[in-house]
Amino acid sequence: MSFCLICADQKIFLQRYFMTKSQIQFVLSLSQQKYRKAHNAYLVEGDKNAKEWLASSSSIQMVIALETWLNENRQLLDQHPEAQIVMAKDFELEKSTSLKTAQEVILVVQQAPQYPIKDTNSWALLLEKVQNPGNMGTIIRIADWFGIETIYCTEDCVEVYNPKVIQATMGSFLRVQIHFIQLKDFLDSNKATIYATCLQGQSVHDLKEPKPGIIALGNESVGLSKDLIAAAQYPVTIPGKGKAESLNVAVATGIICAALIR
Amino acid sequence: MSFCLICADQKIFLQRYFMTKSQIQFVLSLSQQKYRKAHNAYLVEGDKNAKEWLASSSSIQMVIALETWLNENRQLLDQHPEAQIVMAKDFELEKSTSLKTAQEVILVVQQAPQYPIKDTNSWALLLEKVQNPGNMGTIIRIADWFGIETIYCTEDCVEVYNPKVIQATMGSFLRVQIHFIQLKDFLDSNKATIYATCLQGQSVHDLKEPKPGIIALGNESVGLSKDLIAAAQYPVTIPGKGKAESLNVAVATGIICAALIR
Repeated sequence: MSFCLICADQKIFLQRYFMTKSQIQFVLSLSQQKYRKAHNAYLVEGDKNAKEWLASSSSIQMVIALETWLNENRQLLDQHPEAQIVMAKDFELEKSTSLKTAQEVILVVQQAPQYPIKDTNSWALLLEKVQNPGNMGTIIRIADWFGIETIYCTEDCVEVYNPKVIQATMGSFLRVQIHFIQLKDFLDSNKATIYATCLQGQSVHDLKEPKPGIIALGNESVGLSKDLIAAAQYPVTIPGKGKAESLNVAVATGIICAALIR
Repeated sequence: MSFCLICADQKIFLQRYFMTKSQIQFVLSLSQQKYRKAHNAYLVEGDKNAKEWLASSSSIQMVIALETWLNENRQLLDQHPEAQIVMAKDFELEKSTSLKTAQEVILVVQQAPQYPIKDTNSWALLLEKVQNPGNMGTIIRIADWFGIETIYCTEDCVEVYNPKVIQATMGSFLRVQIHFIQLKDFLDSNKATIYATCLQGQSVHDLKEPKPGIIALGNESVGLSKDLIAAAQYPVTIPGKGKAESLNVAVATGIICAALIR
């Protein structure tokens, strides 16, 4: 039996009033990479993110939310007839979330197909073994801020459908193409200028009118590999005066992008 | 009865072999602000951080660590005769930690006294209602990178002895002075130039040879208050080309510092 949640003429029907055990288990399973892969799906949590995703052309499988949230967002929901709408209670959202604090809405979204890599003359990022999901998400947001549409990730980077990555991107995930690459193959065929962020390069502020290329950033602990630095036309450094050994990789990304891309 | 952990001539004695229940409770309690305040102490976790703190002149109350870690760090421990050394088992560290992943060492450190604010002609930061501990820690690390020695925080910022703040500073916490201030009083008596980071200022790249002053950054969601922007000589903005609504506050701090402090 179906209930009409909001009103019949909005054509939003609920299959049932509250979540079933197996729905909770399904949603919760998507906080693990193996299940995201198996179901080709991922989670988007929280009001702001959910609105960004619903306003996009993403294929939404499920919208699980508090009744109040569903009522307030009829119009957005109406744009996604493919989505199953599930009204949930607080404690059900708490049981389903992968985040520390349960949000009022969780979306289950289909993973987009990997698009082929396009040769462009635009700026791009290359991330080598960036492993912290918060950093990855923040970097995707930085790319979006500076109009960078392409991020290449080595295969040992954190998986980008991780809920913490999605959370940190604040919707920018929808506007940036992420390609997972084999570093050796990529470097062999690459023709773009590479700017490699490291501790022993020239000051990033000394490059005059740099031409668009690929800005490379490395792992949180060890930075970029020797191979990548050797392949770069410009090893670049952020000059500092203090005693900190390094900067957070997302902060470094922001500083290098701001210095190179005007 | 006391055991000598390492060897008698190193003069490092254990009061007992493993942690007592009340020690575990004490350490765990320090993940809460009210107990940090009551005990005037805070936690420092993990190998890298512990070494930074032990190499400093901080007053260390306890060092709780795996036997292997204690063995490997005799010399550092020797510099802190005031510290009680407690050998712990894996599961005891897991029970005591405030972090997601237990580390091999936890220090209990005494909070330093608040130093009086000095008038200087150096760069400083002013944070208004920055609430995410990871952002606060990353900003402290950025300050240290750029040689900024003073951070002013409004009283509604996250408490800086929060273990996640400490964790994210990577030792920079020891080299930056943090002052909690009443914003109105501060602005009334302030004579330094204020650069306020906001979305409607002039491009930060257009300021030629800016003189040292205070770089102000605001809350993660709402940015700086009108009062603070109005009090600033220079409202500054990070130019972007993409569609992201904003940048993470720590990333913005890094970009503004890199642009202004050369």
